[in-house]
Order: sequence, then C-alpha cells, then structure tokens
Amino acid sequence: MRGLEARALAVAGPLYSLRVLRAGYSRPNADGTCRADGSVTLLWGGPLTVLVDTGGPWLRPRLPGLLAAHGVAAEDVTHVVVTHGHSDHAGNLNLFPRATLLVGFDLSRGEGLYLPHGLAQGVPLELHPGHLRVVPTPGHTRAHVSLLALGTALGAVAVAGDAFESGEDEGQWQALSEEPAAQRRSRDELAAAAEVIVPGHGEPFRVVREWGTPDEEEEEEEEGGRWRGGDCEEEEEKKKKEEEEDEKKKEEGGSQRCGGEEEEEKKDEDVTSRHGDNEEEDGVTSGQGQRPGGGR
Amino acid sequence: MRGLEARALAVAGPLYSLRVLRAGYSRPNADGTCRADGSVTLLWGGPLTVLVDTGGPWLRPRLPGLLAAHGVAAEDVTHVVVTHGHSDHAGNLNLFPRATLLVGFDLSRGEGLYLPHGLAQGVPLELHPGHLRVVPTPGHTRAHVSLLALGTALGAVAVAGDAFESGEDEGQWQALSEEPAAQRRSRDELAAAAEVIVPGHGEPFRVVREWGTPDEEEEEEEEGGRWRGGDCEEEEEKKKKEEEEDEKKKEEGGSQRCGGEEEEEKKDEDVTSRHGDNEEEDGVTSGQGQRPGGGR
Repeated sequence: MRGLEARALAVAGPLYSLRVLRAGYSRPNADGTCRADGSVTLLWGGPLTVLVDTGGPWLRPRLPGLLAAHGVAAEDVTHVVVTHGHSDHAGNLNLFPRATLLVGFDLSRGEGLYLPHGLAQGVPLELHPGHLRVVPTPGHTRAHVSLLALGTALGAVAVAGDAFESGEDEGQWQALSEEPAAQRRSRDELAAAAEVIVPGHGEPFRVVREWGTPDEEEEEEEEGGRWRGGDCEEEEEKKKKEEEEDEKKKEEGGSQRCGGEEEEEKKDEDVTSRHGDNEEEDGVTSGQGQRPGGGR
Repeated sequence: MRGLEARALAVAGPLYSLRVLRAGYSRPNADGTCRADGSVTLLWGGPLTVLVDTGGPWLRPRLPGLLAAHGVAAEDVTHVVVTHGHSDHAGNLNLFPRATLLVGFDLSRGEGLYLPHGLAQGVPLELHPGHLRVVPTPGHTRAHVSLLALGTALGAVAVAGDAFESGEDEGQWQALSEEPAAQRRSRDELAAAAEVIVPGHGEPFRVVREWGTPDEEEEEEEEGGRWRGGDCEEEEEKKKKEEEEDEKKKEEGGSQRCGGEEEEEKKDEDVTSRHGDNEEEDGVTSGQGQRPGGGR
C-alpha cells in the first residue's frame, strides 16, 4: 500500500482548515537505535485554534516558525491536544501558556488547574460541537486520545496520534502498544469514523473501505452494502485470532520507541518548503489506504 | 501520619547531593476541579546532574531559577528523568537540549535519537552504578519509573513520581492508578528499597517499617526480624483482599488528575524562601512515614 505523497496535508473546511505542519517518522538504525518524531497538526479558521501534538522537545526552535507560516502565533493557540504523553509528542507543552491543554486524559489550563471531563469513561470531549471532537482511543497508551475534525472538504479527518503509526503499520504497531486489543478497537473505530487519518509517524492516508476482490466488491455494491459481513461466529473467530496475533507481536516488541521492523529510509524533508508546494485542490493525492481492522 | 515538615528536602551524600526543588501538591476544589503540580528534584555533585520531573508547563518561567539557586544552569543538566508522561511532570522537556532524556520508558538524546534499554522488561537503568538507578515502577501509568539515589546521608532516597501521591495517600492513590495491582507491587518495592520517598504530590517522607504494637515490635526485634511474617496462606489472602479493594477504589475514580477525596488546604509556599531555610544537618525532620504495602 502506498501512503499519500510527501506533501503537507492541507484540508479546507467550511469553518476550520487543517494542516499537517510536520508529518512524523520513525527510522530504525542497524544498531537498535532509531530516530523518530511525532506528527504535528494545526486546525484554525474558526473560533478555536487547535494544535494537535507538539513533536519532540528538539522541535522547540522550529515550532513557532511552523505556526507563523500560517499566521498563527503561540499566543493565538486556544487548545493544545496532545494525544499521549510520549516524548515525541509532548515535547513542547510549555510554549502555549494561554491555551487549554489536554495531554491524554488530563485537561488543564492556567497554573495547573485541572478540569473534570469524561474521556476516561469513554465520553468524547466536544471542543467545538459538530466540528472538533476529541475521542478516547486507548491502546498505544491507556490514556490516548485522537481528534476528529468533522465536515472538512475531505470528510472527517482523524488526527490519530499513535493509534496508527503509519498507513502501512499492520504487523508493526503491536510491538509499540501497551494494550493491543484496545488499540485494535480504537483503530477500527477511527477507520470507521474518518475518511483521512493523520498517523503519528507517517504521512496522512485515505481510509479505503474495501473487502475482497474487485468482482466481489462490485457484487457488494450492487447488493447495496460496502462491507462484506460474515456470520457472527465467523467474525468472532476472526477477531479472536487477530487479538492473539496482536498480543504475540506485542511480546516480540517492548512497547518502547524503536520496536518493529526496519523501514526504508525516508528523506527528512525541509518542512518549510512543503508549505509552498501545496496548491492542489485538497492537498491529498489518491492512494491506497488502511483497511480497517484485519490484516492484509 | 505526619509527613515531613514543609521544608525543601536536602540530602548530602558521598558523591551526589539531592534537593527537592519543589514539592508537588494536589488540592481539590469543591467544583470538581483541582490544582496540582508534580515534585521537581535535582541531584548534583557527581559526574552527572540529574533532574527528576520538570513540573507542569506553567513552571517554565521559574524552573531555571530553581536550578540556578544551586549553581546549576539548564545546560549543565546531563539527564532529565521524567517519571511518567503526565502534564504535571512532563511540562518542560524542551529546556534541556543537551541532556539525555528519559520519559517513562522512552530514552532519547539529541534530535530524537531513541536508545534501546531494558526498563520495559523490568531491567533497571543504571545512570551511575552504585549511586543513581532508574527502576521501572509501573501502575500509575504502565511506563512509570522512579529514581533511586543510593548511599546518601539518609540511606537510599526514592524519587517516586506518582507511585506515591503523598505520604498519606493510602485509599486515595487507587483512583488515579491505571493498574492498581501493579502499583501496589511498585509501592512495596520502593518502600523496601528506600529510607526516604519523594512522592509526586506531597512532601518527602521517611519510610517506617513497623508492624503491630510497640510491645510486639520489641519482641520482633529480639527475635532478630523487623517484619512480622504471617504464614503464606494468610499473606496470600491479605494480598488478594488488598487487590480487590484497590480495584474497587480505582473504579470509583477515573484515573485522571482530581480523583480522590478532599485534602486540607495547604499554603503554596514561595519556593525561593525554602532554599534559605535549610540549614539543618540533613534537611529532614522526623515524622511518621509510610507503611509499606497494607492499608491503615
């Protein structure tokens, strides 16, 4: 499967625009180390200005510039949503003193005033009802969240943190997961809810909901359904087998950054040049996407 | 039980000195919000200069001054050990670009170069063998660590993150725990290993290993053992009951900051004045401490 081209994803919407300021990456080295950073995404144009994830602390010198390229200063950011408390996502919490801050399930503002909410109980946090919603997506860590931007030009966009490492992470994400079964469910939910997913360590990708061969798919469409539903028992068996496989892959890893197989080296592009490139209608090229649930 | 007096804990050692720059706190409000910040601890004097936890992002303006009061500049810090990725501990990762950074189980340096290690498999990370050791202490979060400073003037000091909220948190910590059974074990291990514990949201306290009445304790000492061991079946039953109680308390909370009961309001002292106060021999006053394991 190909992900989208290495261009900054820019999505217009009736109210909010979305821009992936910096796509994340994870590049293992032969000596067992790896170089990694998390995706950084900005939503602006409406009453709120929301930054999703802040990259690693080493991004500190460059993050203000990435914002300024969109006319956004740090003090304009109203909400910082950090999908989870890993160092490659939570590296720059202290650059936005005016913002309401969500780190996983911890919501605060000002000088450490923590606010109650229902994310830990599975209740979404509506930042802007109908437009921006934070949903709990446990698994990679227990208190992991994602942001859904609704009604954009591309449909719903899920800024998914490390619920998805990349658009081609099947078989690899489990090694980095604290709770693979929960993460499997989170991935399924996000892929059902969104047309585009921004993963934590790769380029954004379209969700492709297809099942079986092109002939079978055509047959499905004629029958009026895009999903092939097996009978319940078959689905149950399939899910059970997936969970066993997920757990096995988790044990092979160590749920710390640098789990997983080697990837082809990707060039770490100069992020400033990516902003000028994007003059396409929606900034998203076509490509295969992530099948929800199941393996390849 | 009383904790130690509200003075900055300062402990000398043959090599490293330890100073709690800022004791954490957690003060619930009647409206369901709470104000909280995590403890910040510095170890210096040896080849390494180690900061354990960085407080919340709102501490950014004051953290350099807290370090400077001990002649330490940000660029002198060689290691930043963040016990876990909650916002009241991981708020200032980006102030120490020269340091090796450990956030939970993620060890990195430079521009996001992640380094392998064994913490996720239960293997301690020896920052300075015989002196400074990071140990995995899961429970509050899955990837939670603590730092043991060995051989200080007070014996071993455990900088425990939120494995201990405070010296008087029995019955309350469970509501904030992702995995109470694991955290119970972590707490037992820390209390067995350390003479003094620096908790995440309270003053440091001495560990008191006592069991039963003063008469029984005397009898124990005469018999050569400081612990009263019940028979194995009794201990097993006791542990099982504890775990059930822990899980019950967790369900009553929501594993997000501001779980737990109301505490008496403590005055948020001016941290700069606390440095001048501490001319006592070891900076630690006597007081009751935390019984390892079991409830009150």
